[in-house]
Amino acid sequence: MTEKAGAIIVAAGSSTRMGGVDKIFAELCGAPVIARTLRAFQSPTVISGTVLVLAPDSVQRGRDLVAEHGFTRVTVVAGGARRQDSVRSGLEALGECDYVLVHDGPRPFVTAALIDQALKAAQETGAAVPALLVTDTVKEADSDLLVARTLDRSRLWAVQTPQAFRRDVLKRAHREVTDDVTDDAAMVEALGLPVRIFEGSRTNIKITTPDDLTLAAALLTQLSA
Amino acid sequence: MTEKAGAIIVAAGSSTRMGGVDKIFAELCGAPVIARTLRAFQSPTVISGTVLVLAPDSVQRGRDLVAEHGFTRVTVVAGGARRQDSVRSGLEALGECDYVLVHDGPRPFVTAALIDQALKAAQETGAAVPALLVTDTVKEADSDLLVARTLDRSRLWAVQTPQAFRRDVLKRAHREVTDDVTDDAAMVEALGLPVRIFEGSRTNIKITTPDDLTLAAALLTQLSA
Repeated sequence: MTEKAGAIIVAAGSSTRMGGVDKIFAELCGAPVIARTLRAFQSPTVISGTVLVLAPDSVQRGRDLVAEHGFTRVTVVAGGARRQDSVRSGLEALGECDYVLVHDGPRPFVTAALIDQALKAAQETGAAVPALLVTDTVKEADSDLLVARTLDRSRLWAVQTPQAFRRDVLKRAHREVTDDVTDDAAMVEALGLPVRIFEGSRTNIKITTPDDLTLAAALLTQLSA
Repeated sequence: MTEKAGAIIVAAGSSTRMGGVDKIFAELCGAPVIARTLRAFQSPTVISGTVLVLAPDSVQRGRDLVAEHGFTRVTVVAGGARRQDSVRSGLEALGECDYVLVHDGPRPFVTAALIDQALKAAQETGAAVPALLVTDTVKEADSDLLVARTLDRSRLWAVQTPQAFRRDVLKRAHREVTDDVTDDAAMVEALGLPVRIFEGSRTNIKITTPDDLTLAAALLTQLSA
């Protein structure tokens, strides 16, 4: 495609589940998690620029990291209280582009292929998310932690990133939707616009706990073997 | 508790996702996965006996493994087409007991503490399942893979095993419920009986793919460090 896509890498959350260590700066086989994530967005020629959104007190550390690794076309900005506030900060800092990719900073195994798939799907529908069919049995609980019902998992998808959007669609969503959401696609859904699901990748894990970091190191050893 | 519990370890599924290797006999740091699972049920004094349910053509291999490891009070039987058929085979082979634990064979990191919690919760309500709050954003898809809705994940739990039941409750469920289900608790729910959710364990993973085996080896190294 001749159109251009901007990438927003969101990593402004607190790291309480990592026991205080900021997960995105944690070392993963010799490189910080966030450096691996940023690197994945450096090569695809479709990407015109990347905005890295960090907690205010991590912005300088992020800029140092970008300089140290020689990453190009990366802007580092401070995020807000909620994830969607951080994405909005990213949107404001992004230069001209036709599409926007929103990606979790702690997902370092994102690939050029996944980025490409996301953009192709978003060209068709305006918005697209990678996801995996849920394999666990999922139950809905009532307030007493008694099971209210078991869901039909054959229709349930666990969503990953990168999520891709036509830029005007995402901007409109961020302008019109103010409710708390857990991902950007939910804002587009709230407008009644279509969101396409496409098959994500099992290795595209999100590093949330120290166990995840252990898994990530094992995966990396295996992927490079 | 002075009451007794029987354990049914279900491992009769096909291993297509493991690329043909039977995941439960796969070596995990020097011992087959299923040997680690069985060992966890050997020590708790509350457990009066264990039935291991395998695919018909794995029964002999299972019996050899039980003998080789010197496991006691373990019976190996052949399972059926569906998971619930296998559990029923297990129920029929189980000796007298007040409670039944149903556990996935490919979950080798089950602990005595988790078994104890399951039984205590089942004493109160008749049925109990360990589960983790869903952390992924989960979306329901329509048949065209467009998002139908994003679920409220604050009420969603991803279910693990061991699931614990008063034996009469589970027997009645297996007698009266014939629909396909993905776990035993769903059969109890179908009878309108209460099922309690209690907090499971992050390390209590199910080994389904070769990646899971890599993760399991990493976890094991970390747990024994």
